[in-house]
This record gives sequence, C-alpha cells and structure tokens, in this order.
Amino acid sequence: MSEDIAATIIALERGALDRWGKGDPSGYLEISAPDVVYFDPYTERRLDGLAALTRLYDSIRGKVRIDHDELLDPSVQVCGDAAVLTFNLISHVGDAHIRWNCTEVYRRSAGRWLIIHTHWSITQHLS
Amino acid sequence: MSEDIAATIIALERGALDRWGKGDPSGYLEISAPDVVYFDPYTERRLDGLAALTRLYDSIRGKVRIDHDELLDPSVQVCGDAAVLTFNLISHVGDAHIRWNCTEVYRRSAGRWLIIHTHWSITQHLS
Repeated sequence: MSEDIAATIIALERGALDRWGKGDPSGYLEISAPDVVYFDPYTERRLDGLAALTRLYDSIRGKVRIDHDELLDPSVQVCGDAAVLTFNLISHVGDAHIRWNCTEVYRRSAGRWLIIHTHWSITQHLS
Repeated sequence: MSEDIAATIIALERGALDRWGKGDPSGYLEISAPDVVYFDPYTERRLDGLAALTRLYDSIRGKVRIDHDELLDPSVQVCGDAAVLTFNLISHVGDAHIRWNCTEVYRRSAGRWLIIHTHWSITQHLS
C-alpha cells in the first residue's frame, strides 16, 4: 500500500517536473492545494497560499528551460493522508547544472493527492 | 485542537533551537524519529536515518554559537498524525546574520511528536 502511494506521488512529481522544464509551471499549480506554503531560494520569505504561488509562477511562465534532469533517490514517508516526498535533483541546461534539495508534502483529500508544502533549495556542498 | 498541536510543535522546535544555538545538537536528536530524513545546504545529498544525522551533528557539537535568533511567522499544517512546521529564521552572530528557510515535518506516535523530516536552506533573496 505504501509502495502504491509512493509510486503515485513520484509519478505526480515527475509529470509536473517535466512540464516545468518546458517552461510550464501549471503542472505544479494543478496539483497544489489552496493552502500550499512554499519556499525557494529566491523568495524573501515563505509564500502562503495558491494565489501567491500562482503569481510567482506566472511571472516566470515560459522562461524556464531545462534540457534534462536527474531525480535522485526519491523517498516517500507516508503518515495517514500525508506523504513526504524528498529527493535530490540535478538540472542540466547546456553544459551547466544545478543541484537541488527538494521537499514536497502531499495531502490526500477525496482520493486526490495535492501538495500542501514545497521547499526547493540549492545544494551548496562543494567537493 | 489544531491550535493546541501548533503550540506544542512550535514549543518543541523553540526548545531544540535554543540548545542548538548553544552548541548542543542533542535537542534536535532527542525529538527526531529513527527514520528521519534530512537536508541542509552543506550535505552533498539527503541524509537518511537518525544514525546518519547523529554522526553529522556529533561532528559539529560545541562548534555552533548563535547570539540570538528570530523565528518568524511559524505555520503549522496538521494532517492527522502529521504536522508540517515552516518558518523563516534570522540567526544573529555578532554583527552578522543569516536568513534561513526551514521545514520540519513532525509525526505523532504514542502521543509523542517526533521529526521525520528536516530541511534547512539559506534564503538567497537579495534586495
């Protein structure tokens, strides 16, 4: 059962990420809950609510282009109707790449999993 | 009920953070679950499990000193036995400060709330 949930959650994320890399943030917006709270490195503070996230994503719509990415070692911790997806991501654009840490907390409501919290950050480890 | 949970969770975090700022990471270790998964900016990838987190924290035990911090606008989203705490933090050391984004996912088991996921990152917004 937990394995089924994990597969469902990872597929949702993978689908949204594929659209994101083509400049379309609506994949994420369509699976985010009204009460989503959001962190990324470039916002001054946490964003609260789908309306705020939509404003942010609309401002970069069409501007993101990722050639390919590697979603590494996804983990899904299930706790009732909540599921915590975490993974590392390497985004490749041309010869450059960025390493990310990502957290997505999903909540199941009426059989549908929606994101209630997103936290993207840059892996700054240098070695 | 959700307000009681929020107050409990924030008090747990505040207590661990106060010990952290005095160089004692055990406040966090004592309220982290065996299956905790962990991100901070300086680890190359996600750390999985309390043993791995203990090794990391033991390596910096006694080395952290925060003069004071500001825990800004904590949010607690409750979903059954899971609770997602998010906040911004400003850590002051002398005249310097660092701005953080923080996610803590707590899980209740046998009446006790333990952290199953931590994500610390640096707020890189410049304005």
